[in-house]
Amino acid sequence: MSNVKEKVAVIGAGSWGTALALVLADNGHEVRLWGHKQEQIDEINSKHTNEKYLPNLKLPETIVGISSLSAALEGMDIIILAVPTKAIREVLGKIREFQKFPLTIVHVSKGIEPDSLLRISEMIEQELPSSVLKDIVVLSGPSHAEEVSLRHPTTVTVSSENMDAANMVQDLFMNQHFRVYTNPDVIGVEIGGALKNIIALAAGISDGLGYGDNAKAALITRGLTEIARLGTKMGANPLTFLGLSGIGDLIVTCTSVHSRNWRAGNMLGKGKKLDEVLESMGMVVEGVRTTKAAYQLSEKYNVKMPITESLYGVLFNDNNPKEAVDQLMGRLKTNEMEDLTNGLVD
Amino acid sequence: MSNVKEKVAVIGAGSWGTALALVLADNGHEVRLWGHKQEQIDEINSKHTNEKYLPNLKLPETIVGISSLSAALEGMDIIILAVPTKAIREVLGKIREFQKFPLTIVHVSKGIEPDSLLRISEMIEQELPSSVLKDIVVLSGPSHAEEVSLRHPTTVTVSSENMDAANMVQDLFMNQHFRVYTNPDVIGVEIGGALKNIIALAAGISDGLGYGDNAKAALITRGLTEIARLGTKMGANPLTFLGLSGIGDLIVTCTSVHSRNWRAGNMLGKGKKLDEVLESMGMVVEGVRTTKAAYQLSEKYNVKMPITESLYGVLFNDNNPKEAVDQLMGRLKTNEMEDLTNGLVD
Repeated sequence: MSNVKEKVAVIGAGSWGTALALVLADNGHEVRLWGHKQEQIDEINSKHTNEKYLPNLKLPETIVGISSLSAALEGMDIIILAVPTKAIREVLGKIREFQKFPLTIVHVSKGIEPDSLLRISEMIEQELPSSVLKDIVVLSGPSHAEEVSLRHPTTVTVSSENMDAANMVQDLFMNQHFRVYTNPDVIGVEIGGALKNIIALAAGISDGLGYGDNAKAALITRGLTEIARLGTKMGANPLTFLGLSGIGDLIVTCTSVHSRNWRAGNMLGKGKKLDEVLESMGMVVEGVRTTKAAYQLSEKYNVKMPITESLYGVLFNDNNPKEAVDQLMGRLKTNEMEDLTNGLVD
Repeated sequence: MSNVKEKVAVIGAGSWGTALALVLADNGHEVRLWGHKQEQIDEINSKHTNEKYLPNLKLPETIVGISSLSAALEGMDIIILAVPTKAIREVLGKIREFQKFPLTIVHVSKGIEPDSLLRISEMIEQELPSSVLKDIVVLSGPSHAEEVSLRHPTTVTVSSENMDAANMVQDLFMNQHFRVYTNPDVIGVEIGGALKNIIALAAGISDGLGYGDNAKAALITRGLTEIARLGTKMGANPLTFLGLSGIGDLIVTCTSVHSRNWRAGNMLGKGKKLDEVLESMGMVVEGVRTTKAAYQLSEKYNVKMPITESLYGVLFNDNNPKEAVDQLMGRLKTNEMEDLTNGLVD
């Protein structure tokens, strides 16, 4: 934990934005937490709670809620961008409008934009001119917001093309409960974080079908292999997928009851239709959008992604989930090593 | 699933030996199941059950229980060695005594012998002369016996220095529920299988302390890194640790209520002493022996293994588990990539 006290605006007052605001406040930084719902901001400022997203949490009074984005940005050198991927372009458009000086943007979103097939940092670069953008840092890893808010031990990775910016963000967040590693591989960190949601959906389906831990471990392991295969073709370092933003985040998302993507998959495995599932969740399920994007990426880069392909069929072509899993199991026998190496080394 | 029907003896009628006997019988092979307890063998032959190890399972009548090891071996070309690592040398000594012709031995045990620091296949080579030993194949992966016995989807890896032998064993076991991959990296497959039990103990401790999924995912991820670091120094291919016998088995062992090592760790985390834990389990906890062996290996190969070292302190020096976990979290900030690459590439 560094002794330098910064002023930081967290853009997005959902569960993850709020948990990160808490870590920053614990480290003594001055924190603004922006959300667009006036009622929620009033609750943060008057009761120091954010009941809808992190029930039972008492926020430090040094966290100030703000509902005006221009006011939240004023005088800031660093902002944490914690909005759903779907809302990113809209928020970036407003930042472009209000911001006067170059900012360091730490994004904590996980996704790939369908059709454009851009990673989040590429979307940020596309939306913001260099006059308002200094550095982009991505923060990712196995980190349920609920547990971070309980100050349980958590580890994450930060990555940037400018390692000075990554080191600065490491200092900003690092404390006894929240351990931050750096990694220079932005592409690998972003791809791992985005594509894990696909495997979480698949793991949820397997659990919903009543299959066991063996099947789920197989899906996670083979899922990691296909993510690494695609990521490496896109320019990532294969070893990043062995790290916190790769297998670490994949494990936590696939094995935890907190995960929305797992919960959505679980309902699909129990026989519900995608429309019903999305309606009953009432929250964003990133994995559904990401499955479409990953399927498009696998075609663009000509990479074999059998789990992604099966899931795409279940989500968008109404294929039967049980038949999809059984078909994955019935594939021709393979040499694991050829399969792992394929695409990782060329 | 191959059409060739073999005669196979499974040596060891615990839960894993029995589940594998079931897979072989499902594939139409003639299966002998050896155990040293006459009462258990009588139960297998008369009631076609093995209640103590796999309750509620009805065994096919083509599985014949045998309590004489010499009778079990007679006329066999292939045996599956499924005894606890502690009993392996004793059983191999008897095989040496009875066996007349070269055998293919498929071992399914997971461990490293303390002090000698040998892998299982090295112990087999040491005990059996070439006159009775044809090939050694290791079978490993995320596979709880209970789930295999329910014919839930399961994937494993087989590895051998002779890939013809590995391919033969792949054909022997492969079916619609039990998917077998091959991998030429014997060292990596054996090291991954053995050392995962250490991380399962550590994950159990973390859960026992009341920490959450973030902490457990961190332990699994950083645990895999140190296993890969050691394994690579010992001659393994680092990519094997990304596979079923590496991260796959690690996930299933660390996140499942079936795992003995996790359960033992959980009790330690809740404040019980090692002696009490081992007594109350009444079953072998491989991870305790393996922690000692891995600690010795880390010294022999001069590899940094912080989780193994902390666990060694908790198990053998009576260190406080909470202090051990907090100390792991409080280590100096690191670059994940340097740390991952360190020892993996040199």
